[in-house]
Amino acid sequence: MKNSSRGSVDPFIVMDVMEQARRLEASGVSIIRMEVGQPSTAAPNPALEKLTAQMQSDAMGYTVALGLPRLRQKIADLYKTRYGVSLNPDRVIVTSGSSGAFLLSFTSLFDSADRVGIGAPGYPSYRQILRALGCTPVDLQTGLENGLQPVPADLDGQNLDGLMVASPANPTGTMLGRRELEALIAACQAQDIAFISDEIYHGVEYDKKAVTALEITDDCYVINSFSKYHSMTGWRIGWMIVPEDHIRRVERLAQNMFICAPHASQIAALAALDCEAELEANVGVYRTNRSLMIAGLKQAGFDNIAPPDGAFYIYADIAKFSDNSLEFARSILTEAGVAVTPGLDFDPVRGHRTLRFSYARQTSDIEEGLRRLTDFMRKRGFIA
Amino acid sequence: MKNSSRGSVDPFIVMDVMEQARRLEASGVSIIRMEVGQPSTAAPNPALEKLTAQMQSDAMGYTVALGLPRLRQKIADLYKTRYGVSLNPDRVIVTSGSSGAFLLSFTSLFDSADRVGIGAPGYPSYRQILRALGCTPVDLQTGLENGLQPVPADLDGQNLDGLMVASPANPTGTMLGRRELEALIAACQAQDIAFISDEIYHGVEYDKKAVTALEITDDCYVINSFSKYHSMTGWRIGWMIVPEDHIRRVERLAQNMFICAPHASQIAALAALDCEAELEANVGVYRTNRSLMIAGLKQAGFDNIAPPDGAFYIYADIAKFSDNSLEFARSILTEAGVAVTPGLDFDPVRGHRTLRFSYARQTSDIEEGLRRLTDFMRKRGFIA
Repeated sequence: MKNSSRGSVDPFIVMDVMEQARRLEASGVSIIRMEVGQPSTAAPNPALEKLTAQMQSDAMGYTVALGLPRLRQKIADLYKTRYGVSLNPDRVIVTSGSSGAFLLSFTSLFDSADRVGIGAPGYPSYRQILRALGCTPVDLQTGLENGLQPVPADLDGQNLDGLMVASPANPTGTMLGRRELEALIAACQAQDIAFISDEIYHGVEYDKKAVTALEITDDCYVINSFSKYHSMTGWRIGWMIVPEDHIRRVERLAQNMFICAPHASQIAALAALDCEAELEANVGVYRTNRSLMIAGLKQAGFDNIAPPDGAFYIYADIAKFSDNSLEFARSILTEAGVAVTPGLDFDPVRGHRTLRFSYARQTSDIEEGLRRLTDFMRKRGFIA
Repeated sequence: MKNSSRGSVDPFIVMDVMEQARRLEASGVSIIRMEVGQPSTAAPNPALEKLTAQMQSDAMGYTVALGLPRLRQKIADLYKTRYGVSLNPDRVIVTSGSSGAFLLSFTSLFDSADRVGIGAPGYPSYRQILRALGCTPVDLQTGLENGLQPVPADLDGQNLDGLMVASPANPTGTMLGRRELEALIAACQAQDIAFISDEIYHGVEYDKKAVTALEITDDCYVINSFSKYHSMTGWRIGWMIVPEDHIRRVERLAQNMFICAPHASQIAALAALDCEAELEANVGVYRTNRSLMIAGLKQAGFDNIAPPDGAFYIYADIAKFSDNSLEFARSILTEAGVAVTPGLDFDPVRGHRTLRFSYARQTSDIEEGLRRLTDFMRKRGFIA
């Protein structure tokens, strides 16, 4: 049967790493999972309890397309408590994960062949979803001096229709400060470039507080998710904030493309918003892991990294050791028993000399993983 | 902020009817809901119990993109027991509802501007999703003599890249028999038109058994869902069967566009596949309702309908009474207290003289609704 050209997207390399790791584990080999981009914790307990109770009395049919009104209100409230931003709850769109928010925002904002800038390195699905929708993703090669985040000068001559930024970012964990975000937003507004801010790692931050684009402008799309801070990856539930004059068009798109986000996940998310203590304890674990990783990776020879302000990733330059990250990651997996992600997913041009390490798992795993990595690097002669 | 042209899709009229009905109910008015396209029943009990149990021990993270292997196997088994078709479970893609399957199939098969035929009347979201993806939906005006289903002659001169059929169909409930389906598939294969079969109402059928396209060819996409027969609308869980040489491309698209279908819904769906008795009892209610509707609508003057073979809809021509279905539906809602859907959602050209009646709710509602409709039509002088 015939097929489309836009449907021929690149493979997702981390998925292949995960499958290899799974196979090794199934054959009895111990593998430390530093490739996985999700918490090992479940959704907060009260979320599970609320859902269990609700299922007894509620047929859990479709909700309205934009989400349960009570959930939209509580998400709006979050912007008040977290950032001091007053938000009309009508602007909150409950989505099927941030994935659903990407699909909705890109179709709402961009036509076929429109050019959308994304930072490289960056979350690979931005590029692939844009392609699948017939848009043109434009990789902006970011510099380590800018924390591997785009800056206004990167937009020059690119003739962009949109710009997607992420802070804290995957795979680097770096953040855009308020001044950097202001500069990018101003540059976009001057050039009529639609601005989308991926904020799905907000809340998973360490020394500095993440800044939302909504502190600076209402004229943007902001995407967030219950997956990371609220530890609800498999529930596929997220949200998006849109300008007031975009609510109705996004509602129509959501009605047709999704009908609604999963009802059960919306119920669980409602309760998860009240679980600060349990969720901050999770962040405490990431904080411990992060300190171990920064020190341990350096000791293992991975000393060329961007400052990991948030999320649970560290992106390391391995040019001193290899110019084939795929091969290097494979060696680490099979020889050291540590699964890591080669940078090619995140940066097709320069990712052959980078690796992403995730520290979302439990601390004992991080300690063991660092021991193995140090051992591997010593055996290879990269460190003394 | 700028926006796309493809994102400006039509409003979903049934949603506005639902909102009006909700408002009237909130103000204390009794409304019989014959506009709603979903069962009033919950997911089968064992599905809820299995999920409740699983949440105790499982973090419910991402699943692999194509779905839990056990679920894919059980869906493949369903084709054996229901249709006698042997199916490689690798061809089963678990999706975020049939909505997710539409997005995946259209991006996998069609490029921007590709022309995709859909029967009119038909499910409105086909048209809107295709538009949102930059494709060109082509309405095929079907005839009552063909049960409001497309026939090969309808493809002539349309220069199609794809054809989407639905059997049983929404809004008509009519089915394509084996011979009709064979003829359409042959015509598509002769013209290199990708064939997609929407089978989400399979199992909700009465006098005749629904035929799956997989009984005829492997060279097609088949879309199904747990929403209707398994009574799980709000769970957003469905599936798709693709040709073997399309598995990998759909996997890559699914990894990027969705990551995975909701984990909780996959767990519930696993158990729902073993709940034949409870689900057949639901179909028994629809069967009773259908008989009441066919007789009652005729008595109320709505005698020009297509034969409702399956699903829980009846599509009636109201040309004798009105050429403004929007206005007519509004009168029925406010004067008779029955919510029905004007045909314009399903057929922008001819839908000004049709209505869709849904009989998915409990039998007592159907009886009361028919009493009210008869009364309304009598007051208007359309029947004696």
